[in-house]
Amino acid sequence: MYDRMQTLTQEEMTRIHDAAMDLLGTTGIAFNEDEALTIFKKNGFKVDGKTVYFTEARVRNALSTAPSRFTVTARNPEKSVAVGGDDYVFVPGYGAPFITLTSGLQRESTMDDYDNFCKLVQTSRHINMNGFMMVEPSDVPADTAHLDMIFSSIILCDKPFMGSPVSKQGARDCVDMAAVVWGGMDKLRAVGPVTVSLINSLSPLQFSDEMAGSLIELARANQACVIASLIMAGSSGPVTLAGVLALQTAEILAGLTLAQLVNPGAPVVYGSTSSAMDMKTGGLSIGCPELSVVVSATAQMARFYNLPSRSGGSLTDAHFPDAQAAVESTLALTTAARNGINFILHAAGILGSYISMSYEKFLIDEEVCGITRRLLKPMEITPGSIDTDMIKTVGIGGQYLTQPKTFQLCRTEFHLTDFMNRQNHAGWKAGGRKRIDEFAVDRLGQRLARYEKPGIDPGVEAALADFVTRRKKG
Amino acid sequence: MYDRMQTLTQEEMTRIHDAAMDLLGTTGIAFNEDEALTIFKKNGFKVDGKTVYFTEARVRNALSTAPSRFTVTARNPEKSVAVGGDDYVFVPGYGAPFITLTSGLQRESTMDDYDNFCKLVQTSRHINMNGFMMVEPSDVPADTAHLDMIFSSIILCDKPFMGSPVSKQGARDCVDMAAVVWGGMDKLRAVGPVTVSLINSLSPLQFSDEMAGSLIELARANQACVIASLIMAGSSGPVTLAGVLALQTAEILAGLTLAQLVNPGAPVVYGSTSSAMDMKTGGLSIGCPELSVVVSATAQMARFYNLPSRSGGSLTDAHFPDAQAAVESTLALTTAARNGINFILHAAGILGSYISMSYEKFLIDEEVCGITRRLLKPMEITPGSIDTDMIKTVGIGGQYLTQPKTFQLCRTEFHLTDFMNRQNHAGWKAGGRKRIDEFAVDRLGQRLARYEKPGIDPGVEAALADFVTRRKKG
Repeated sequence: MYDRMQTLTQEEMTRIHDAAMDLLGTTGIAFNEDEALTIFKKNGFKVDGKTVYFTEARVRNALSTAPSRFTVTARNPEKSVAVGGDDYVFVPGYGAPFITLTSGLQRESTMDDYDNFCKLVQTSRHINMNGFMMVEPSDVPADTAHLDMIFSSIILCDKPFMGSPVSKQGARDCVDMAAVVWGGMDKLRAVGPVTVSLINSLSPLQFSDEMAGSLIELARANQACVIASLIMAGSSGPVTLAGVLALQTAEILAGLTLAQLVNPGAPVVYGSTSSAMDMKTGGLSIGCPELSVVVSATAQMARFYNLPSRSGGSLTDAHFPDAQAAVESTLALTTAARNGINFILHAAGILGSYISMSYEKFLIDEEVCGITRRLLKPMEITPGSIDTDMIKTVGIGGQYLTQPKTFQLCRTEFHLTDFMNRQNHAGWKAGGRKRIDEFAVDRLGQRLARYEKPGIDPGVEAALADFVTRRKKG
Repeated sequence: MYDRMQTLTQEEMTRIHDAAMDLLGTTGIAFNEDEALTIFKKNGFKVDGKTVYFTEARVRNALSTAPSRFTVTARNPEKSVAVGGDDYVFVPGYGAPFITLTSGLQRESTMDDYDNFCKLVQTSRHINMNGFMMVEPSDVPADTAHLDMIFSSIILCDKPFMGSPVSKQGARDCVDMAAVVWGGMDKLRAVGPVTVSLINSLSPLQFSDEMAGSLIELARANQACVIASLIMAGSSGPVTLAGVLALQTAEILAGLTLAQLVNPGAPVVYGSTSSAMDMKTGGLSIGCPELSVVVSATAQMARFYNLPSRSGGSLTDAHFPDAQAAVESTLALTTAARNGINFILHAAGILGSYISMSYEKFLIDEEVCGITRRLLKPMEITPGSIDTDMIKTVGIGGQYLTQPKTFQLCRTEFHLTDFMNRQNHAGWKAGGRKRIDEFAVDRLGQRLARYEKPGIDPGVEAALADFVTRRKKG
């Protein structure tokens, strides 16, 4: 439809592509990981030290094997999700070291928090996938925390889950644990991706050893990877968003090429949450409108390459689930969902430029996910759904409340929110004049009380627990 | 671009149109106003009692003279605005009897509040037009309140203002006062519309005497009118949104036809804030996603008729400027702006399903208006704006902060918000852990202190004051 948001022309996208190709061919991308360099060399790429140079033909070859859509299989097959094309998933916040308390103060997050978020995802009507590192738990050793998190992700929730890209070994652990659930590595390979992992470039123009190593392991096991660039315009990338798009495209295509060399057909996602520097503080702003401009362009560039796309969802710079948090989150999430992003990370809970998770914000954001799905559901426009006969029957000045059709359809035509306030002022006042974040506090208790652990083969659970114990010892 | 929000097909829009034509021809529209009935009769329309019947040919004839775009001239010509096509304006909240206090309690609004909102509009970077009845002042007599409000609107702000559709006489007063400003009725007619007034139908299928009478007066004086339908699906209209679209189209086209009979070429706007009934309370919900679905369809139907469009902006059912208010407001406002609405009413301040205005929400919503304008500003994508040379110069692992281009462009590339928080948690904590609505309290005082009354010819101001005094006596 007519849209005041910029539609990139084929010519403009080609300019971004050409610039990315130029950068890949002349400046190249540094991979701080030996196996990556070996793979590139083995495939005839020019490698100088840690820098890999790409020709357009090699990139196009990699693009030709990357799928445009894939399914992530859940251990409860009814909860499997599709990523690509018209299909999109909401995935919770990621990477927060802190929990925001209702006072606005923060405390370090723990494994209990991680488990709680697994339970919220399990009981969610709108969050489609379980996350990874939804918080960074402070009460377990950092080098084995990924084992605890993957264990919780699998045991406490039967939706698909995000994988562990913390290191080559961490990625291997994730694959091994998935293999336990699916009955061995062969069966896991046959089922296709059961995880999606987040591989970030190190802008400008690099991949760290952890990220490159994880990408190799995960692609090898046919697990899906988001390859994402998180450029801060004016700091780790050009000040112009056009320059940012070229730079991120170069980085993403380099990662994508590595994945396809490892395993042609490995599912990869064109990802970005590049954003702008705040001019007042010099820090990253992810609540700014430039983020949503990049989200829209990212969705369009991904389609240009016929790839699934990833962006952030409910992103904000605010430190409290207040009106600012909601403005910024709603803007980014709805832009992502409308414009065609397939994998919407940080769809719920994240606060303060990624620094913390808020239980209350999780519940509010989740409402927005539901509202957004409703917003995007097409209405039927047929003589039957218009029903001029009924309008004529009701006539001038009549009322529709008692029409049989109103009774019949009101529960399916109208979206029911969970706890958004629809009371009049008197009712709201009588209920204690609570802000929605205060309502969310009550709701949290109810949600966690309602949680039931999904069924799992006790042998599988024991084998997973055993794997974690052994790996911690070894 | 690809958009997951529904794009109505030509066939679907034709179905809505055909249903509206059917309703206009068979059930007709009641006009509770004698002059309206006389005008229809004089022009050969079938009129039965108060019910007027429309043929498609007569409606199409009216559509052929209605402009697709018009300019509303301000008394400060630099602040004139265009309504139609790619141009859109943000207009403040309308019709609120109450003011929401920072406690969430409400008090009755006064003329002082009205004046304060005039001052906020005058000092706004993002609100393009002054409103009318931004609050319903309780401390002046109701039958002459429109005179006080129009006087304040003109004197305290030099942006274009909304007109008074409170009654036939009220509309005439508005035109007379505008004529004082523009140097007489002939000069006013020559300058074109200087006001936009809100004419609401009385759903289903009626126009009240006040609204029909105002429409006649305003169209006669070549002042612009929004003709809007505010159907509550399931109560004052069909439960299906498709049915709502047909019903609202019939009502709007009936009003439009009257305006064009009075004055062919009179500027009219296809308007709607039809929404759904809340299933839990049975009341109107304007915070629900159905509202935004209707907003999108309204923009599309207006373009189908080649007319400017109107919807609500920052609409919410919440009674406090909290996260719920921001979610709902941001969703409706950005949908309106993206999808092509031209006249975005209630863009700032409104709370609680139209029941009150909040100063704090006004300032927060205004930020969203600014953010939305930035969001929709296209980026230049050229070799110059991409600048691969700079990216190559910075190279692998370099930084862009000290690049001359970063200094040069950072103030124009990045949107500067007014008071959205971009501090880190430590800074925010040191500042007292304020929610954005608490920051807005501080901001309000600064804004009102900054206000300066715009210059006006003392003779004009005296003549306006005299007009108001005379009309109050008479």
